[in-house]
Amino acid sequence: MAERVNVSFFQELMATVAEQGRALLPKALFRDSAGESIEVLSRALMSGRGEASGVAIARQLLNQLKKASGEERLAFYHFLAKDLQPDPTDVSDAARNYLESPTDKALRRLQKASYSPRLEFFRRLNLAPGATAEIVALRADLVRHIKSDEGLAAVDSDLERLLGSWFNRGFLVLRRIDWQTPAAILEKIIQYEAVHEIRGWDDLRRRLDPKDRRCFAFFHPALVDEPLIFVEVALMRETPDAISTVLDGRSSDDDAPPTTAVFYSISNCQEGLKGVSFGNFLLKQVVEDLARDVSTLRTFVTLSPAPSFARWVDRAVASGSDVPISAEDRKALARLRDPRWVEEAAKDAPGTEELRSALMGLAAHYYLMARSSDDRPVDQVARFHLGNGARLERLNWLGDISEKGLREAHGLMVNYRYDLSEIERNHEAYADEGTVSASRAVRSLLRPVSKTKGIAAVPDLLVLPSGTKTKRARSEDAQS
Amino acid sequence: MAERVNVSFFQELMATVAEQGRALLPKALFRDSAGESIEVLSRALMSGRGEASGVAIARQLLNQLKKASGEERLAFYHFLAKDLQPDPTDVSDAARNYLESPTDKALRRLQKASYSPRLEFFRRLNLAPGATAEIVALRADLVRHIKSDEGLAAVDSDLERLLGSWFNRGFLVLRRIDWQTPAAILEKIIQYEAVHEIRGWDDLRRRLDPKDRRCFAFFHPALVDEPLIFVEVALMRETPDAISTVLDGRSSDDDAPPTTAVFYSISNCQEGLKGVSFGNFLLKQVVEDLARDVSTLRTFVTLSPAPSFARWVDRAVASGSDVPISAEDRKALARLRDPRWVEEAAKDAPGTEELRSALMGLAAHYYLMARSSDDRPVDQVARFHLGNGARLERLNWLGDISEKGLREAHGLMVNYRYDLSEIERNHEAYADEGTVSASRAVRSLLRPVSKTKGIAAVPDLLVLPSGTKTKRARSEDAQS
Amino acid sequence: MAERVNVSFFQELMATVAEQGRALLPKALFRDSAGESIEVLSRALMSGRGEASGVAIARQLLNQLKKASGEERLAFYHFLAKDLQPDPTDVSDAARNYLESPTDKALRRLQKASYSPRLEFFRRLNLAPGATAEIVALRADLVRHIKSDEGLAAVDSDLERLLGSWFNRGFLVLRRIDWQTPAAILEKIIQYEAVHEIRGWDDLRRRLDPKDRRCFAFFHPALVDEPLIFVEVALMRETPDAISTVLDGRSSDDDAPPTTAVFYSISNCQEGLKGVSFGNFLLKQVVEDLARDVSTLRTFVTLSPAPSFARWVDRAVASGSDVPISAEDRKALARLRDPRWVEEAAKDAPGTEELRSALMGLAAHYYLMARSSDDRPVDQVARFHLGNGARLERLNWLGDISEKGLREAHGLMVNYRYDLSEIERNHEAYADEGTVSASRAVRSLLRPVSKTKGIAAVPDLLVLPSGTKTKRARSEDAQS
Amino acid sequence: MAERVNVSFFQELMATVAEQGRALLPKALFRDSAGESIEVLSRALMSGRGEASGVAIARQLLNQLKKASGEERLAFYHFLAKDLQPDPTDVSDAARNYLESPTDKALRRLQKASYSPRLEFFRRLNLAPGATAEIVALRADLVRHIKSDEGLAAVDSDLERLLGSWFNRGFLVLRRIDWQTPAAILEKIIQYEAVHEIRGWDDLRRRLDPKDRRCFAFFHPALVDEPLIFVEVALMRETPDAISTVLDGRSSDDDAPPTTAVFYSISNCQEGLKGVSFGNFLLKQVVEDLARDVSTLRTFVTLSPAPSFARWVDRAVASGSDVPISAEDRKALARLRDPRWVEEAAKDAPGTEELRSALMGLAAHYYLMARSSDDRPVDQVARFHLGNGARLERLNWLGDISEKGLREAHGLMVNYRYDLSEIERNHEAYADEGTVSASRAVRSLLRPVSKTKGIAAVPDLLVLPSGTKTKRARSEDAQS
Repeated sequence: MAERVNVSFFQELMATVAEQGRALLPKALFRDSAGESIEVLSRALMSGRGEASGVAIARQLLNQLKKASGEERLAFYHFLAKDLQPDPTDVSDAARNYLESPTDKALRRLQKASYSPRLEFFRRLNLAPGATAEIVALRADLVRHIKSDEGLAAVDSDLERLLGSWFNRGFLVLRRIDWQTPAAILEKIIQYEAVHEIRGWDDLRRRLDPKDRRCFAFFHPALVDEPLIFVEVALMRETPDAISTVLDGRSSDDDAPPTTAVFYSISNCQEGLKGVSFGNFLLKQVVEDLARDVSTLRTFVTLSPAPSFARWVDRAVASGSDVPISAEDRKALARLRDPRWVEEAAKDAPGTEELRSALMGLAAHYYLMARSSDDRPVDQVARFHLGNGARLERLNWLGDISEKGLREAHGLMVNYRYDLSEIERNHEAYADEGTVSASRAVRSLLRPVSKTKGIAAVPDLLVLPSGTKTKRARSEDAQS
Repeated sequence: MAERVNVSFFQELMATVAEQGRALLPKALFRDSAGESIEVLSRALMSGRGEASGVAIARQLLNQLKKASGEERLAFYHFLAKDLQPDPTDVSDAARNYLESPTDKALRRLQKASYSPRLEFFRRLNLAPGATAEIVALRADLVRHIKSDEGLAAVDSDLERLLGSWFNRGFLVLRRIDWQTPAAILEKIIQYEAVHEIRGWDDLRRRLDPKDRRCFAFFHPALVDEPLIFVEVALMRETPDAISTVLDGRSSDDDAPPTTAVFYSISNCQEGLKGVSFGNFLLKQVVEDLARDVSTLRTFVTLSPAPSFARWVDRAVASGSDVPISAEDRKALARLRDPRWVEEAAKDAPGTEELRSALMGLAAHYYLMARSSDDRPVDQVARFHLGNGARLERLNWLGDISEKGLREAHGLMVNYRYDLSEIERNHEAYADEGTVSASRAVRSLLRPVSKTKGIAAVPDLLVLPSGTKTKRARSEDAQS
Repeated sequence: MAERVNVSFFQELMATVAEQGRALLPKALFRDSAGESIEVLSRALMSGRGEASGVAIARQLLNQLKKASGEERLAFYHFLAKDLQPDPTDVSDAARNYLESPTDKALRRLQKASYSPRLEFFRRLNLAPGATAEIVALRADLVRHIKSDEGLAAVDSDLERLLGSWFNRGFLVLRRIDWQTPAAILEKIIQYEAVHEIRGWDDLRRRLDPKDRRCFAFFHPALVDEPLIFVEVALMRETPDAISTVLDGRSSDDDAPPTTAVFYSISNCQEGLKGVSFGNFLLKQVVEDLARDVSTLRTFVTLSPAPSFARWVDRAVASGSDVPISAEDRKALARLRDPRWVEEAAKDAPGTEELRSALMGLAAHYYLMARSSDDRPVDQVARFHLGNGARLERLNWLGDISEKGLREAHGLMVNYRYDLSEIERNHEAYADEGTVSASRAVRSLLRPVSKTKGIAAVPDLLVLPSGTKTKRARSEDAQS
Repeated sequence: MAERVNVSFFQELMATVAEQGRALLPKALFRDSAGESIEVLSRALMSGRGEASGVAIARQLLNQLKKASGEERLAFYHFLAKDLQPDPTDVSDAARNYLESPTDKALRRLQKASYSPRLEFFRRLNLAPGATAEIVALRADLVRHIKSDEGLAAVDSDLERLLGSWFNRGFLVLRRIDWQTPAAILEKIIQYEAVHEIRGWDDLRRRLDPKDRRCFAFFHPALVDEPLIFVEVALMRETPDAISTVLDGRSSDDDAPPTTAVFYSISNCQEGLKGVSFGNFLLKQVVEDLARDVSTLRTFVTLSPAPSFARWVDRAVASGSDVPISAEDRKALARLRDPRWVEEAAKDAPGTEELRSALMGLAAHYYLMARSSDDRPVDQVARFHLGNGARLERLNWLGDISEKGLREAHGLMVNYRYDLSEIERNHEAYADEGTVSASRAVRSLLRPVSKTKGIAAVPDLLVLPSGTKTKRARSEDAQS
């Protein structure tokens, strides 16, 4: 019988946040700085004047930035990069001092001297009502320039750290998105969906149907109208092997309770929060919430794309790759060049089974064996779910036969399973040793030794990436 | 006609914040770490395991800390101080590298190497629902140990910086406190009032009377039930010269509109946020809000205590001080030793005028001339308001004749005035040159040259602390 | 400085209303009445058992009614009509008693004896959570039967009186509808729009654009998700003469402030609240709210359809009518039979002016002279606005050339003007004497004497319906 | 998985109710009626002008009534009583018509003719923002006059019926009252507590302690800040036999879960809603809610006063009563005249047992046998709980030894038990036949035949009021 939460006071309090975020600043109160340049305002913000009138200056500066041309903004970023640096003499002195005598005090002096003034700059910029959203938007713009302008990387790095601190998971709020959600938010869900496009309001409504669909998003108190990330869930009675089952499925009339929560789309919404990770926390909290609210759920599983599989296959098929492909496989795979292959495969035309077998063998290799230069799986979606502690559960032939699905993955889709009893163990095995947790079914798709260039057939014992060190070996029992 | 704020969605969202802050963690989902020690959990939080199960580990760790004895907590602080340090070799290497070639890249390497792992530790700790409040409480406890344990200063310094970032003014919410506020919050207002004690609920109700009283507080979304700082305001028709006028004043029946907003009490609420400054922002926003809501207000002024005046007077009177005190003054001041002096002064007994004159002369010196070692005014309340850009408006004889008022300030109270047209200028003059903005009335209380040991009488031209450098000189016109 | 409203407590309180409206009743607590028939439950509700377990019985009864077939519901209505009647003997006795001695006491006995038990029945039915919405739906169903089943009129009459009491304007809430409104409500706005169909979400969004559009609806606390009536408003810079100007108008880029609020669509939403009038209150409150919020507004005007004009013209043109139509007019009006007439009129083809003149003359007659059997204007929209105190401001040729606009009104649209300074006077003149307040422009369209069969041309003096009694005469000055 | 309730939209909607209830009416919009008399305004409200400007007139009228003297208000009530009557000729005609031919149509004509215009008057009065609360207050004032002015009874009777309709349980909201509730509401709880006075905020806080106390109130959407009725509950581990156990009980430290919910105080708050019953619904809903939220609760019981027991005892002891009192009892009861009897009884002084026995015997008679003229129990609290279907569970000697408890009930307190499985049966038995459901323990206190003047001792078979008719007999098994 714990003390009740003060919900209503808090709500009203928060309504105030929302409102003050939009309030017009009483201009008359402060020295009119409307005509001052971005750089002058930036310097003012960091000066003693900034202490007295920080809110007003920050607001002016943000207004100027909003009206600024692309060039002016770029100049501003360069100003941040060049002028808001620690003083080199201070840093050098502190470094020398530390090397002479590496005491606690010397360390603190060094930390202080090398501390980036940009962090303080952005903290002061955030004084203005509604600033947080504008700072996030600023970074989205900045990020576009980094690719072509290495000098701005330090600015971006500071911003990423600061936003990571502000958008700490402890400050985020998980909210269900449904048909009671304001249209302004729903419209953004339509817009931000990045995996399986939402085709208008009717499609959205189907995806929010309380009977067998769920959608959850993270929000931050200072970003009133903006979801940060959201996940779409289908409540089903079995793990689906094709996305059409989810997207086109009518809600069934029988009232058999759902047993399986299928995460079929996860979309990050804010370019400006790149590098600040939410997905991990979102999925885990949604699993917990669903487990509590829908007591019949037993299985939590994704239906995920394989975004770089087709590209990888093309490269593997090309000569010179070390991926084991038999001549038969090569022949079968040649069918992929004919755009009508899917149609025929759907009709189970002759040669379909050979193609299926070759492609699924390659898929198993893609997930279990292939590694990128950092010794992690090639597939970014796999990295995300395996890093979260999920298990590679099933590879689905013809899982997504949309134009995009065929182009990116020859139709392949994947189920990752979140089994609460093994999430932590999987995560650690993956984090420490790169081990990919996979079901026996997936592992059994790996081609036998003769085809895989001298690697022992160990499907029942180990799943090892090529070049595995001994300490990574783990018994299968530990994994499935 | 700007777009409306999405208040209701936001409110509901925030209700979720409030609730999730108290939610019980589904224990079953994660490895049971209930029995693990604080140090083991702390290390786990910083490890790969912390990435997978950070929320659960952080929650466990906070639970352990809550149950911990004083000694155990102290051991934990020392663990933070000793073990969560940057790697000295890394720092040394990075320092050496920077000294060799102070490039941007070398700087970033140095910043990274010297970055305190404690910051990351507290960020991970904050993953747990409701953690922010517990971290603030933790610092309140830590601060108590610092005085006697210098080794913990670095931990405290990290925490102060982190909390300063989290409690950025841009994330705070100003809320009016009134009779519609939940009792749980009102009770804390009673408890936290630090200037003029609130004597029970009836006294509180008077101080919240919407007819002529206001109270505002800052809140933070992650600290549901806790005001951070609050200010009490009386709406009056003239600037009061004694606190009893405010505290005992019945609300008058005539409906003459108020002209003067009197800030008569400002209290910080959270020990754990020491060093994170809110008062500046609070006062300015309240001034703006009141100016908008009560259009008849013309004057914004405080009625403030002078908490160290009595102590300073005692020292000044003692021999060896450089404060100019005439023999007559000395004689007059001797009356202060008799506890009945106030009573008699109130009756205007013989000698009262001499005492008044001596004390007010000293008061003017205390504010205008006396400086502490950092060349700023001795009085901490004066530092705060002058630093905010206020002007020293009036010194009030017998302003507070409560036991506390007499003990701390021989009854002296002070009005600081917030004049929006000069706040920024005052602030800069004070920040840059230590200039105290004061009304002519206050300056005229300064004792003439013969009494003040050879300092020129310049009340109409300059207000200078003793030992003033030329560059600080400012024409009076600039100040009042 | 009145006392602040306790908004947050109230909101939370109301959230409880909303939730309890959907709560499942704890079945176990009461005698299981799931299997009992509608009639048995109805009788139980009126009995002593109803006093003890009214909530549960009412819930059961409503559940049964929801599942009931059309026939079963009809039987239920007949049960209400026949069995829930005052006792005839009681009524007769009380009537006799009153006639003997018409005292206060005798009156009260008569009132009591003749009081309809159905009122009590519906009050008890309303005990169940969520009942109000179901009772409103019940009446919507009942109303459909009345047309063919006179016996049920008494039941309907009781329900109308009861709902009129429950939905008293004092209990209604005016809410702005905008893009922050939940999709579930917006969807109903699309569905309930009865004047100018909303063509999907994009059209809706345009109609809610905060720049120059407004939408307001009345809600009742006990009907959570259901608007009762809503009005759509365009903020413009002049009174529009065609609906396309409003529906297709892009929001202009120039920021000239709006001067004219145009009410271009008013839709009742609830069949079951037929006869309970809201429109009057809605318009007046919206006028007040807009006048306060958008200070540049000077004119409040409708752009309204003329739903029975075409039918009336057809009848007028047919022989035997007493509407004065000249031979030339007749010839011009014949063009209406060609569906291409609008196209040609838009091109100002020869004969257009004659048609325009004939049709607008008839329109003036339709509004100013024609009367239905109750001596009120023929047009129902005119009755509504004139009854509210509006003035007939302008008749618009080719105002609505949609298929519906042409079919119902040969394209005619009307502006009614709400001038706050004359609303009350207009209303009284209309209510007491049937006087139609009309602008000089409208009155000048009336055909001169020779064409109007011997009625004096008095446009500048009087606007009189045919057969006007003398006392209705009013000077023009009083009206425009 | 039902559709989620639209809580937030509803909350915002309701905030609007709260606000509009206080909004100032834009005076300029309507004919200024500030100077018109109450009667003129009342007539205007009922006229055609009332239809056009009802909101404004109603507001003016309510304002006039607020400022009116007692005499003026009385004149207004008489105006309502005399002038707002059905037309006698209409009523007579309709009565005659009905007697001639009692058809449905004739009945409706009669109902219409005899319908009280006052009902319409109050409905129009309710158009004004905030009117409902003022109408309730009006009735509270009116009720005071009825006692001395029979002529106003008809007005009151109309108001009671109307308020009964508006305050239908379906429109009420149950809200928990706790330390998060706004002080403005809590203050009213202190003020309205009618059974066991709340001695200030500390006492209140104890009564709201979430550990083992609960408080619930009913609210109505149109009465923002006003509880209608509230109940205080203690969660305990056994049924208490004295109020001090509840009021003075510290919350125990052991965490043994509560088994017994004790309703120890129920207070109606609104004089103006006299005759509109809420208590019945309140208790039942609180029982349901508590049963759901605190799963360990098994027993729901009151600890209730016996407000007229002492008076009844005095009369019984006086000669001429038909209550059986033996000479010994008489002697024992004489001790009650000594104010120190309680003190001595507490010390179990000689004679205590005799007094206890005599008093408890009388108490049993008071509840089980004594009847008022309507053949119901004498005790009003008993009527309430027995009417709700509760059972008389236990009579407590020295249950309330406060001054009030001794004065009103010689210290007696009573437990009524709400057993969900028998509530409906008990209610029906009580409603239909006046049967008092009582535990064997209570019945066993009834004095044997020789003492009770010839009534058979049938405690194990029947509990019958004196003069019981046979059909009321019920087997004991049915009752306990």
